Amino acid sequence: MNVPRSVLVTGTGLIGTSVALALRARGVAVQLFDTDPEALRLARDRGAGEEWRPGEPVDLAVIAVPPHSVAEVLARLQASRAARCYTDVASVKVVPIREARQLGCDLVSYVPGHPMAGRETSGPLAAHAGLFSGRPWVLCPTGHASQEALAMVRQMVSRCGGRLVELDAAVHDKAVALVSHAPHVVAAAMAAQLADSAETTLGLAGQGLRDMTRIAGGDPVLWADILAGNASAVAETLDAVAHDLTVAAASLRATGDRITSLLERGAHGRSQIPPLLEQAS
Amino acid sequence: MNVPRSVLVTGTGLIGTSVALALRARGVAVQLFDTDPEALRLARDRGAGEEWRPGEPVDLAVIAVPPHSVAEVLARLQASRAARCYTDVASVKVVPIREARQLGCDLVSYVPGHPMAGRETSGPLAAHAGLFSGRPWVLCPTGHASQEALAMVRQMVSRCGGRLVELDAAVHDKAVALVSHAPHVVAAAMAAQLADSAETTLGLAGQGLRDMTRIAGGDPVLWADILAGNASAVAETLDAVAHDLTVAAASLRATGDRITSLLERGAHGRSQIPPLLEQAS
Repeated sequence: MNVPRSVLVTGTGLIGTSVALALRARGVAVQLFDTDPEALRLARDRGAGEEWRPGEPVDLAVIAVPPHSVAEVLARLQASRAARCYTDVASVKVVPIREARQLGCDLVSYVPGHPMAGRETSGPLAAHAGLFSGRPWVLCPTGHASQEALAMVRQMVSRCGGRLVELDAAVHDKAVALVSHAPHVVAAAMAAQLADSAETTLGLAGQGLRDMTRIAGGDPVLWADILAGNASAVAETLDAVAHDLTVAAASLRATGDRITSLLERGAHGRSQIPPLLEQAS
Repeated sequence: MNVPRSVLVTGTGLIGTSVALALRARGVAVQLFDTDPEALRLARDRGAGEEWRPGEPVDLAVIAVPPHSVAEVLARLQASRAARCYTDVASVKVVPIREARQLGCDLVSYVPGHPMAGRETSGPLAAHAGLFSGRPWVLCPTGHASQEALAMVRQMVSRCGGRLVELDAAVHDKAVALVSHAPHVVAAAMAAQLADSAETTLGLAGQGLRDMTRIAGGDPVLWADILAGNASAVAETLDAVAHDLTVAAASLRATGDRITSLLERGAHGRSQIPPLLEQAS
């Protein structure tokens, strides 16, 4: 009971296709949809599931589209009674929930979610069933969610290998601004300085620079959408980082020693990050 | 001829001990010195070489001390005729060379160097013979260097597995400001924001944040010394990054779209970094 036996994944990008592959590996019947026929074909070729048969309601629909489209897709699916329960996987939660409310979506059958997993490569070809293994998967249920919807979505998370975390949507958005969204912009700002560098200069780059800028390789359009959906929390952290860098630059020019205290705060902050329980490969 | 058969490594930290291990593996007789008896003992226990016998001049002395001590150590070694030739491994080059000149060091026997390798852990226990394998090793010979000294130091680089790059000291310092020193401060500034975060927040951190902040785990005192030795070039890059972040924050707050152009510049800059020829583990 309340175990998802049939799931529709709508949006067969990296995350959607990985969800589909993980569920298929656990024997769940998966149907797939994407507005891009090529992405849909690639996901089917990967064995992620069959093409969506709209007349046939599923237990659970997983909405794996960019943040700004979540509410609209939810409204459309609910209007056609595509599923008994619904979740999404967008990296921001406050705005999609507000938009769902504004569009008159049914919040009883909807449990917003966000698996904390990703890669700098995107699309169905980068997907794999182990992407969520041991990684936090945040659910942000509104007060309206039914026990059935909650149970169904929790079961889905567990079948994907995710580690369940339940948070208030605003708390989630502030947290991911700090640990994911702002770091993405900071990495991009550093990587942007390299754009017009001489080959000799870039030839000196070591593993440190590669690791530090890796996330900046992500899709700019998808990330602009994510950041827009979490604008004020991200902007706050960016301003704090910019302030520290400006002070550091002034301190270096004045041969002051405030740079050491920033480096010490940095080493301390770095040491606060807990070890990964299991590494997504 | 001009092959280093006996080498003194002074400073048995990560880099010095790794040089010693790499040379020992190629049959070079290595002597070791460190002002810290414990670091010296650990390096000897690792099999990095024997204790320095000061009365016995070696072919080459490798000065592996923090940047601000390079010139002083060089002057002292030259005064006691410890070696025929000298090099160092400091991450900055203009200031140590200027200081060596001011201290009246012999620039004929000295070829300044910088192996582009490192780890976020330090000390002789983190050292390994393969640290420099395939990595660039920059030499910044002044106009005074003898052919003998140049040949000796180049041979040493090749025996350590380094990829020889010869650059003007000022060009080197500007390049490493961009690919190494500024990224270190930027990673530290991001990591510093995490210092007082709730456990729930940090529990959401993924591989992206870990990679992006890894270099911030480096020794703050050593890094403050490195940065002070390359202050103006580093400060220039930090100001540019801070400016981009401030603009990005304002753009997010105004729901403008200038964030996309920063992300695009970042993804482009990231793509400009050439692949590592061989990965130092």
